[in-house]
Amino acid sequence: MTAAAGPSGSAPLGVAMIGYAFMGKAHSQAWRNVAAYFDVPTVEQRVLAGRDAEQVAQAAARFGWAEAATDWRDVIARDDVHIVDICAPGWLHAEIAIAALEAGKHVLVEKPLANSLTESEHMVAAAQAARARGVQSMVGFNYRRVPALAYARRLIADGRLGTVRQVRASYLQDWLADESAPMTWRLRKETAGSGALGDIASHVIDQVQFLLGDTVTDVSGRLHTFVERRPGPGGPEDVTVDDAAWATLSLAGGALASVEVSRVALGRKNSLRIEVYGSHGALAFDLERLNELEFLDGTAPGAEQGFRRIVVTEPDHPYVGAWWPPGHVIGWEHTFTHQIRDFLVAIRDGASPSPSFEEGLRVQRVLAAIEESATTAKAIQL
Amino acid sequence: MTAAAGPSGSAPLGVAMIGYAFMGKAHSQAWRNVAAYFDVPTVEQRVLAGRDAEQVAQAAARFGWAEAATDWRDVIARDDVHIVDICAPGWLHAEIAIAALEAGKHVLVEKPLANSLTESEHMVAAAQAARARGVQSMVGFNYRRVPALAYARRLIADGRLGTVRQVRASYLQDWLADESAPMTWRLRKETAGSGALGDIASHVIDQVQFLLGDTVTDVSGRLHTFVERRPGPGGPEDVTVDDAAWATLSLAGGALASVEVSRVALGRKNSLRIEVYGSHGALAFDLERLNELEFLDGTAPGAEQGFRRIVVTEPDHPYVGAWWPPGHVIGWEHTFTHQIRDFLVAIRDGASPSPSFEEGLRVQRVLAAIEESATTAKAIQL
Amino acid sequence: MTAAAGPSGSAPLGVAMIGYAFMGKAHSQAWRNVAAYFDVPTVEQRVLAGRDAEQVAQAAARFGWAEAATDWRDVIARDDVHIVDICAPGWLHAEIAIAALEAGKHVLVEKPLANSLTESEHMVAAAQAARARGVQSMVGFNYRRVPALAYARRLIADGRLGTVRQVRASYLQDWLADESAPMTWRLRKETAGSGALGDIASHVIDQVQFLLGDTVTDVSGRLHTFVERRPGPGGPEDVTVDDAAWATLSLAGGALASVEVSRVALGRKNSLRIEVYGSHGALAFDLERLNELEFLDGTAPGAEQGFRRIVVTEPDHPYVGAWWPPGHVIGWEHTFTHQIRDFLVAIRDGASPSPSFEEGLRVQRVLAAIEESATTAKAIQL
Amino acid sequence: MTAAAGPSGSAPLGVAMIGYAFMGKAHSQAWRNVAAYFDVPTVEQRVLAGRDAEQVAQAAARFGWAEAATDWRDVIARDDVHIVDICAPGWLHAEIAIAALEAGKHVLVEKPLANSLTESEHMVAAAQAARARGVQSMVGFNYRRVPALAYARRLIADGRLGTVRQVRASYLQDWLADESAPMTWRLRKETAGSGALGDIASHVIDQVQFLLGDTVTDVSGRLHTFVERRPGPGGPEDVTVDDAAWATLSLAGGALASVEVSRVALGRKNSLRIEVYGSHGALAFDLERLNELEFLDGTAPGAEQGFRRIVVTEPDHPYVGAWWPPGHVIGWEHTFTHQIRDFLVAIRDGASPSPSFEEGLRVQRVLAAIEESATTAKAIQL
Repeated sequence: MTAAAGPSGSAPLGVAMIGYAFMGKAHSQAWRNVAAYFDVPTVEQRVLAGRDAEQVAQAAARFGWAEAATDWRDVIARDDVHIVDICAPGWLHAEIAIAALEAGKHVLVEKPLANSLTESEHMVAAAQAARARGVQSMVGFNYRRVPALAYARRLIADGRLGTVRQVRASYLQDWLADESAPMTWRLRKETAGSGALGDIASHVIDQVQFLLGDTVTDVSGRLHTFVERRPGPGGPEDVTVDDAAWATLSLAGGALASVEVSRVALGRKNSLRIEVYGSHGALAFDLERLNELEFLDGTAPGAEQGFRRIVVTEPDHPYVGAWWPPGHVIGWEHTFTHQIRDFLVAIRDGASPSPSFEEGLRVQRVLAAIEESATTAKAIQL
Repeated sequence: MTAAAGPSGSAPLGVAMIGYAFMGKAHSQAWRNVAAYFDVPTVEQRVLAGRDAEQVAQAAARFGWAEAATDWRDVIARDDVHIVDICAPGWLHAEIAIAALEAGKHVLVEKPLANSLTESEHMVAAAQAARARGVQSMVGFNYRRVPALAYARRLIADGRLGTVRQVRASYLQDWLADESAPMTWRLRKETAGSGALGDIASHVIDQVQFLLGDTVTDVSGRLHTFVERRPGPGGPEDVTVDDAAWATLSLAGGALASVEVSRVALGRKNSLRIEVYGSHGALAFDLERLNELEFLDGTAPGAEQGFRRIVVTEPDHPYVGAWWPPGHVIGWEHTFTHQIRDFLVAIRDGASPSPSFEEGLRVQRVLAAIEESATTAKAIQL
Repeated sequence: MTAAAGPSGSAPLGVAMIGYAFMGKAHSQAWRNVAAYFDVPTVEQRVLAGRDAEQVAQAAARFGWAEAATDWRDVIARDDVHIVDICAPGWLHAEIAIAALEAGKHVLVEKPLANSLTESEHMVAAAQAARARGVQSMVGFNYRRVPALAYARRLIADGRLGTVRQVRASYLQDWLADESAPMTWRLRKETAGSGALGDIASHVIDQVQFLLGDTVTDVSGRLHTFVERRPGPGGPEDVTVDDAAWATLSLAGGALASVEVSRVALGRKNSLRIEVYGSHGALAFDLERLNELEFLDGTAPGAEQGFRRIVVTEPDHPYVGAWWPPGHVIGWEHTFTHQIRDFLVAIRDGASPSPSFEEGLRVQRVLAAIEESATTAKAIQL
Repeated sequence: MTAAAGPSGSAPLGVAMIGYAFMGKAHSQAWRNVAAYFDVPTVEQRVLAGRDAEQVAQAAARFGWAEAATDWRDVIARDDVHIVDICAPGWLHAEIAIAALEAGKHVLVEKPLANSLTESEHMVAAAQAARARGVQSMVGFNYRRVPALAYARRLIADGRLGTVRQVRASYLQDWLADESAPMTWRLRKETAGSGALGDIASHVIDQVQFLLGDTVTDVSGRLHTFVERRPGPGGPEDVTVDDAAWATLSLAGGALASVEVSRVALGRKNSLRIEVYGSHGALAFDLERLNELEFLDGTAPGAEQGFRRIVVTEPDHPYVGAWWPPGHVIGWEHTFTHQIRDFLVAIRDGASPSPSFEEGLRVQRVLAAIEESATTAKAIQL
């Protein structure tokens, strides 16, 4: 095992990325732009790794990486690579992340942490060992870096909602609403682990725990597959993961949260909605309008109360002072830019970035409990 | 038992109302105004009954009733009374309704049908016997008569949503958000039966079954009391009903519905929200904006799809042709006016009005199953 | 001339209404219901007058009037009539109102006050003479009685907006968007006086002056007719009134207001929208959501500012304490109920109700100035 | 004069930018990212020019420019510079643009084209001469590249609105609402030319002409300064430009547009709102929610009509196929990215990009006419 391989002196940190699909494109954007807005250690996009030599070369050119590579093992072995950003599919997370950490590289891994609890636990062990040597790690729950949600957390932490009682959260998409949409690896349990549950309920659960600064203690859940067969190359195939999921969650501090996620909610494109009701205030958010937060101050006189639409683009809102003047909205992609910013600042300061692998594991445990509850039709303690 | 005591010839139908609090005020409004907008049999507001002689006399004068009375038994015995409208508390529903039906009076009873399944079953038996004699009965799920929801049902019945898959429904209020709000009979199990569950989840469940034209077959549920003690006249008292409830419901036709209700959702005053997602269309509604319905037509080209805000005040929308020109919105109270309209038209036509007592009982059974599920932490078949 | 013919002792006030079309239906509703919600002198709907004997008899029966009559002169001569409510077309306002006032009847007249400035001035003279004898009069700018707008005025008067600078107001409808909609008397200058200007800009101008407690001092205006010919019984006819109008108004206190009205704004059914921007706060309102007011408190910390959606149904909002619990919305028609309430209370108290005929005349003068500005393409001082 | 200095062979196009403040930051972003999303000729960010050597060097490093320079004349003389992007203040536009065009460089200049009509006319002459030599030019009305507005233009051009009649447009900001905000060069007529008029009404006017594919033929306008004195370093100073402006515009095709702009509309941060009403459809847009477009199809049955909220993130919406999956919103800055994309594609294809300097001049003429109308209180023909 190697200690954190920081560059000598003020030389730039070298970054390698594994994977170049949807998440690779989004993370590349963040690496390419972060220093134009935030004061962070200098970084260089050194190498992009992927299996297909031609495609990865094209992606590297397009997304701003100096080199391309086809073997992630070579990449993490390089001395000029100090950070490894893992955007490969979930079943590869554990192997790559553990190897990279052992090689002394700081690691950022996309969510979910892994496809199984066992893998996740191994990753946590690796992260803890690495952390002791000054090697940092982080899991990519990027929605913690939506300015409106970061601001929401601040309002809750500052007591502006009083005691939080009830959380109503959903993440609705519709890309599987059409029953003729074809079969893919994402719809098979053996490759994807789960469906909407792992993919988008994971975001919701992390967000609920993040906003409240609290942890889930028990769950009741339900999974359902509305479209049970989809066209494959050789005829109809069985869909073996959920396309919608529901849960109620108890939190240690006494709050209850309801969760609903779907890939067949026609007309909802990327609608992560969260409502938080406390004894003295309330909040509402929708990712399709991510620059806005609705806040109700329950301490105002009754006649004056109402959900106010805050456009979260003011200089003293989290992150956005770095961007544009008030009212000039930012896009979804900058949740990743902010994530990289915080990751780099933690590395510079020798601090542990959040969400840690432990936090990622905690989300995985909740997902597993929901699945167990769905199977047994009983409530499950965590 | 007496057959339906219709007035002789074209004489007006005499109406008696039992109870004069919140619902009495709302129903009185409907009786007073229905004939100004709709073609219905002529009615006369003959008598209002309540326990306190002075108060009932004042209420009768204010709400347009010719007489006041203190004994509901006298009232239902009158020959000039043909319709009995029961707005008394739930624990009195069964006794009054059964007596009135046996006396040959048409009966409208506020929801929920009764506080217990046993009482509800007796009421259904009485209603069936009366129906055989031409005596009609109805339970007051007034939100079926919101024009936007009646129009939503029509769109669903016409196949504009395709196969309905997922329903997301909630009814959020906040009148108990303040933990210093005092103890009342509504917060004791022995008088109220249940809390938010019976009071407002009943509306949600009836509405889901109404919109989909379908029935609930199994449920998982959870109840919670966020504020467990409230000030009584002699010091703090235990709240023994729920102030929030959650459920997932399976419907016979394959849809799944989530339900969440609360009396502590700060900032939500009377927010019954329903979203319906089908294979070819979707709908969204909020009772706080009851003149609007959002509809998404999933058969339009993708680039043109979006939830459209229909202002449900056009001449060919249900009920509203009787009111004002387009864009001139109506109020919550006219759900009752429409209810009376449909009740009177059914009486005139010798038809059975809907929702029947049987439909009211079906809602009660779902509520009971949710309560059982909450107690046992298991899913319950109906 | 006769002094105010109040009923003897505590006998009810007798009301006569002239006209039974759209406004007659709306005003009847108010007379029928006002006493169920508000503490007002007792009134009786004695007689409804209109030209067609059969139709007026039907309308009287439907809308709750004891008798019908065909000659308004007979009606205002009756000793048992103490109030005359004029819902006849604008060209009849002056003659009826002046006669009724001279007969000692309290008069409520629909807006606009009259079709010409000369007529309006005569009405003001009659109202002033009558007022000296204790006979009251009022013009029906009913939107002053929208609870949200009455509350908006209160916020402005209380200084919650600081100095009001800019008002952005529009009233958009679409009932003439279809160019095949037929010719009517409303589209001829000789019968209607003007088009959208007199009909709906009058509401906007009154509302701006009401909200700000201020008066218009100069105007620039523009009128336009988008559909210049419409089908008549004998072929196409010329439309001789505007179907849209624009103006900018200076107010004495230094504010500027923009006004836009239209009958061809496709998709806007009855959308009176008003935004008010002050040095320390702002407001926004839309009549299609008349139970809501948006308020921004500019004295809050910048990060917390936002337009809050106040559901104007709280007990301490104007008028609505008399209605239903919070969140139970009221309809457009109750602007008239509130108007009758205020009119009756003023009569009882011997006070002058507002808006007075003088206030109605002030609106007419602004409309005339807009028309002159539109003709001369110059700004006009009032 | 020099012909278009394209790079030899497939060598990258070299870009120089003049100015590094707000617009420089936004344009740099576009240059840095455009090739990651769009197929464009390869470009290199060669040099950033500005007056302060130290600051421009820092900005160059931060924003991705290879070099920094302090004299724009040196920069446009360089052989390895093929494109000059002018983000300097308006009073410098003419001199730099004309010199760059004469040097054979393609030119992108921020809006407004210049501070005076005379300068604008000289720039148009230079652009026309350059165009004949294959040297392209463009003015930066970036809001043409908001996907929702580009899509709106397509809907209008495709006839989905029928004949456009009425446009209601406003651009409201509030950064001058606070009367203690200090005096700056932007508030002096001699340096800024005008206030809200030139700065933001220019956007509105370009957009109206763009959306309708039409030109303004006459105007009535009004200017106002609500806060007439502001604190300067040596005490209060006079504000000599408008902080709000109003206009009505006639378009050649028969439509009328109202325009209102303000820098004191408290609570509106960057709210460019546009509503377009046609004979068969209508549109509404707000820049604070730039990923959405509201569209009403007036050819649908009346009961089904309503403004639909289209989330403009579908693959076949303009530009957005290059970005993220549906519902993953983009930010304000990418109006510039799209602008650069279109500019580069035009250069590659030897086509004239739009908006041309002629189009920029046309906007300037409308602004000048509004100013004249405001001064003379008369309507002005163009």
